[in-house]
Amino acid sequence: MTITVHGHSASDSSHLVLHVLKELGLSYEFVQPNSFEEIKTPEYLATKHPFGRIPSLSDDGFHIYESRAIARYLINKYQGTKTSTVLIPSDVQKAALVEQFISVETSYYSQPLGDLVYQLIFKKLHGGEPDLKIANEAREELKKTLDVYEKLLEGKDYLTGEFTLADLLHIPATFYAINVADEGDLWNKRPNVSRWWKNLSERECWKNIVTEYKLLELEQ
Amino acid sequence: MTITVHGHSASDSSHLVLHVLKELGLSYEFVQPNSFEEIKTPEYLATKHPFGRIPSLSDDGFHIYESRAIARYLINKYQGTKTSTVLIPSDVQKAALVEQFISVETSYYSQPLGDLVYQLIFKKLHGGEPDLKIANEAREELKKTLDVYEKLLEGKDYLTGEFTLADLLHIPATFYAINVADEGDLWNKRPNVSRWWKNLSERECWKNIVTEYKLLELEQ
Repeated sequence: MTITVHGHSASDSSHLVLHVLKELGLSYEFVQPNSFEEIKTPEYLATKHPFGRIPSLSDDGFHIYESRAIARYLINKYQGTKTSTVLIPSDVQKAALVEQFISVETSYYSQPLGDLVYQLIFKKLHGGEPDLKIANEAREELKKTLDVYEKLLEGKDYLTGEFTLADLLHIPATFYAINVADEGDLWNKRPNVSRWWKNLSERECWKNIVTEYKLLELEQ
Repeated sequence: MTITVHGHSASDSSHLVLHVLKELGLSYEFVQPNSFEEIKTPEYLATKHPFGRIPSLSDDGFHIYESRAIARYLINKYQGTKTSTVLIPSDVQKAALVEQFISVETSYYSQPLGDLVYQLIFKKLHGGEPDLKIANEAREELKKTLDVYEKLLEGKDYLTGEFTLADLLHIPATFYAINVADEGDLWNKRPNVSRWWKNLSERECWKNIVTEYKLLELEQ
């Protein structure tokens, strides 16, 4: 078994794939493109990702792109073989609730959070100025979502009770928002959300990614 | 077995759930809210969908919201029991490619298409005026996505070769864009994309939804 991740150490969707690999106890090679231009070349589009994005993954000759599809593939193929972590349960109703919260994350959480993180961090890194109107609108939308999360997380450590893929998908962008964009109050001021984030950010596998790929060095 | 869909006949995410139910050969009850206000009441938020959206589904007392999660639940539980249609294959690599194209749809297709359809159809229906700048930007983004689809669909009837959930997810919003917003050229002028759309729009189960829920009457 040789798993190769084509990703980047500053890409949150790459961190997502790396986190799943670590939770499942899988070893892998991590290959980074030489430049931003490389992922737009005809060869890259034809062999790695037709939309010119990262990450993609090769597993003994089988190639797949899109981080969430990669996560599901790894879980389907390897869950339970190296570690006891269950990211998608086999029980139909338990799995349905994981899917429900995966869709909640996509529909109400990742868009405003992505807009906020892009304006406050990545636009600056690329030499631009943050559009504070867009950042403020995104923050207001995210507050509404987190108010609902606060109710959903009442009495629970994780969205479905147990740690699953639904929780894991929230981690990379939330980490940047709290630790680099200094937006931690959004999570900290809501007790249930705050407890949930503490549980997520203290996963050993995630802490290893923060260290190994130097996630906090973006700040400098 | 009693399946109840809480949805609306003019909601594309409700059509998605209805289409999955029909492909799997399942019978169901369809219950519509009495008003738009109803889905924002404390009772609805507490019992149906905490973000105040439609659809949700109840299956013998088990309740779930978010259309894509509902689709996966129905497939996990019922696929193969009433019809031979396979929306998510059991083979790990085939399933991975379905997941890849589900993520492609979410990442590059549904957002610009949703913006276009919202501006050209739903905003008008709600008494507003379309913002043509937003509509034009969405159309340009969608063109880029469809140019990639044109390559991905070379020599194929469906995204992975066979009809799956990945194709099905594209249908409801594309139907509105082509048949109500009159944007058919985006699909028709790309031969592979055009063949693919013909295959999708001619699914018997989908044609039944168009008739039964009077999807074309939005035009009037």
